[in-house]
Amino acid sequence: MIPGVIDLSEKLALITEQWSPKIIAQIEDYQFKLAKLEGDFVWHSHPDTDEVFIVLKGQLRMDFRDGAVTLTEGQMLIVPKTVEHKPYAESECHVMVLVQEGTLNTGDAPRSDRTASSDLWV
Amino acid sequence: MIPGVIDLSEKLALITEQWSPKIIAQIEDYQFKLAKLEGDFVWHSHPDTDEVFIVLKGQLRMDFRDGAVTLTEGQMLIVPKTVEHKPYAESECHVMVLVQEGTLNTGDAPRSDRTASSDLWV
Repeated sequence: MIPGVIDLSEKLALITEQWSPKIIAQIEDYQFKLAKLEGDFVWHSHPDTDEVFIVLKGQLRMDFRDGAVTLTEGQMLIVPKTVEHKPYAESECHVMVLVQEGTLNTGDAPRSDRTASSDLWV
Repeated sequence: MIPGVIDLSEKLALITEQWSPKIIAQIEDYQFKLAKLEGDFVWHSHPDTDEVFIVLKGQLRMDFRDGAVTLTEGQMLIVPKTVEHKPYAESECHVMVLVQEGTLNTGDAPRSDRTASSDLWV
């Protein structure tokens, strides 16, 4: 069996909605997801999973309760479990995320129109 | 606590040896590693871990016993545990790899001059 190649640009082209991470690969119980982000998100944390962000295009600001960092293309960030954070992108940015299977994008925040299905593949 | 940004290009610039993956981030018991590859490697498999390859620069051919795939920048591949594989790069290519902590680059193959330490950070 020869595993298939996953092309990030091709997968991104299939994503039309913002703030709606789509799964592209799974390794054990971790999932790689792609998402397009623009504007402000909600404060939240993930009680059970660290969350890795890798910026593929554009710029992502990650707000924390005690400061913020800005990531550009080719930069990554690990948000540890339980740490409150809020992504923000002035213009649309494209990110790859690694989180545990079943993780909601809005984490422990109340469900809102920003809450996306956690189990959709693209 | 504000997590630090990890810049892939900066980390790659610190890697001088080929075939010597260096850890840049850890999430639970999985490690992100960066490596520069050129030429041929050894056939091996990893009995206990899937292995994710993401090509950051150049071109990587992954040989399997029943065929091969070629990845270019922005493409990824998951090599399932126990599947024999052999990376090959005609010119130097840069990859990000995700594997379980403690995984040897040469897997179950006999130790050789291609076998690198599995626990070095950059």
